[in-house]
Amino acid sequence: MNKILIFGVGLIGGSIALKAKDLRLCKEIVGISRSNGTDLSPFVKSGMLDRASSNYQSEIQSADLIVLATPVAQIEITLEKIYPLLTANTLITDVGSTKTNINQAAKVFLKEKYSQFIGSHPIAGSEKHGPQSAMADLFENKNIIITPHTQSKKEDINKIENFWKKLGGITSIMDANLHDEIFSTVSHLPHLLAFSLVNLINDKNNKETMLEYAASGFRDFSRIAGSSAEMWRDICLANKDAILTDLELYKKEIEALSNLIKNNHHEDLLNYFLKASKTRQNWSKD
Amino acid sequence: MNKILIFGVGLIGGSIALKAKDLRLCKEIVGISRSNGTDLSPFVKSGMLDRASSNYQSEIQSADLIVLATPVAQIEITLEKIYPLLTANTLITDVGSTKTNINQAAKVFLKEKYSQFIGSHPIAGSEKHGPQSAMADLFENKNIIITPHTQSKKEDINKIENFWKKLGGITSIMDANLHDEIFSTVSHLPHLLAFSLVNLINDKNNKETMLEYAASGFRDFSRIAGSSAEMWRDICLANKDAILTDLELYKKEIEALSNLIKNNHHEDLLNYFLKASKTRQNWSKD
Repeated sequence: MNKILIFGVGLIGGSIALKAKDLRLCKEIVGISRSNGTDLSPFVKSGMLDRASSNYQSEIQSADLIVLATPVAQIEITLEKIYPLLTANTLITDVGSTKTNINQAAKVFLKEKYSQFIGSHPIAGSEKHGPQSAMADLFENKNIIITPHTQSKKEDINKIENFWKKLGGITSIMDANLHDEIFSTVSHLPHLLAFSLVNLINDKNNKETMLEYAASGFRDFSRIAGSSAEMWRDICLANKDAILTDLELYKKEIEALSNLIKNNHHEDLLNYFLKASKTRQNWSKD
Repeated sequence: MNKILIFGVGLIGGSIALKAKDLRLCKEIVGISRSNGTDLSPFVKSGMLDRASSNYQSEIQSADLIVLATPVAQIEITLEKIYPLLTANTLITDVGSTKTNINQAAKVFLKEKYSQFIGSHPIAGSEKHGPQSAMADLFENKNIIITPHTQSKKEDINKIENFWKKLGGITSIMDANLHDEIFSTVSHLPHLLAFSLVNLINDKNNKETMLEYAASGFRDFSRIAGSSAEMWRDICLANKDAILTDLELYKKEIEALSNLIKNNHHEDLLNYFLKASKTRQNWSKD
């Protein structure tokens, strides 16, 4: 590969750059900065990027791979901007946490070039964000979900899979809708629940005392509430239907639990907690 | 001190024993085992306890300090059992996560000896349980809340405070009701929310696939769902009112969040997440 072009050099985009540099995966890695976004010059100095550019127009044509690593809401805008400049030699992927909406946007904005886009979702990241948090081994043994569509070519799917495998990931192919349903439940929902608990505390009049006595259970539970607000706003709107369904299910779940407590259902309450703790313990000892 | 008697040698009771032994805080540390409970003989062999006994009757009179470290629901029964044997030289404390109900039980069951009971809550522990998880440094720099009542004597409060300080804790005195309100929100609620999320996944028909793709965010969030079911059943029933109030508030919180998402309120949604992430980041970088 000659050139990888990264739109949105944050935790994920930056980690791709670091690892691709380590592996000498291409001759040049270029980061595109938003006009009011992070100043990328320190990351050129540090060697993470070969160049940073705010003139994306001149970069598109010579890119072998474009990685869209901006917050989800920016991806649509970016697809629209790069369409007219895109030649047949360039593949595009993204790293967004939602896949149906991005796939749909690619179909709309890339038109006859839609087959050049294949979505990805690296299941890697943390509550930390920004290129200063990037790590070359972020994708090591992490699941990377690739969501091809009806127009995707076998050889392009292979190229995208190989790209992620080289970065250390374990790839799997999945339908975009199924992806969004699964991640609504195992990722988006817990994030929203953590944000909501912190805001419930924010609204208590003895908030400061409460936070003073919050301990390790709260620490782990609420860690993801320190995540990027912009990213989670975008995810909520991008995966709206699945998330609203899960929030509704969750409300029913805590209503059922409230009833067990209200009515002193000792045995059902014990079984409720046993069922959850067994599942959690079987899932991981950690 | 001559003798510390521990009812319920689990994570907390065991850690008290280990540290008291290290410090030579008393001549003898005796663990009381329930008839169908954990076999304590390995922990006598390991040196954590000097003796284990299932004959609590013969142990009460010579104890300087009795620590009630059983699940919350067992504490009432234990108070009732020890009352007739209790002499004026013995202080009693507990380590329960709820304080109003235990204080009330002490008043009812210890009658004219009620002043000998002063409740404690060490804010230390983990999703691990049982004496095999005990650690001598469990209380090091941890908050220990002590909840004296109207009949408590100043010198007894001092004794209980000193006991915990020696074990490494940072003590503070608090009203039992305020304690229960605070811990409903910062501890009990997040535990229940984590159990509920895992049970929501338990009820999905593609549960196995979901758990396969759950990642580090889910790992941290749900860690406390691996906690002891019996302990959390007891806490729910012991701190019922505060917990039901918080579950109701939480339901309103996620209804409000659902509405922001449903109505595409970009800016309010961003502010909602910003407010939570700022609070969480200010609380701890970890």
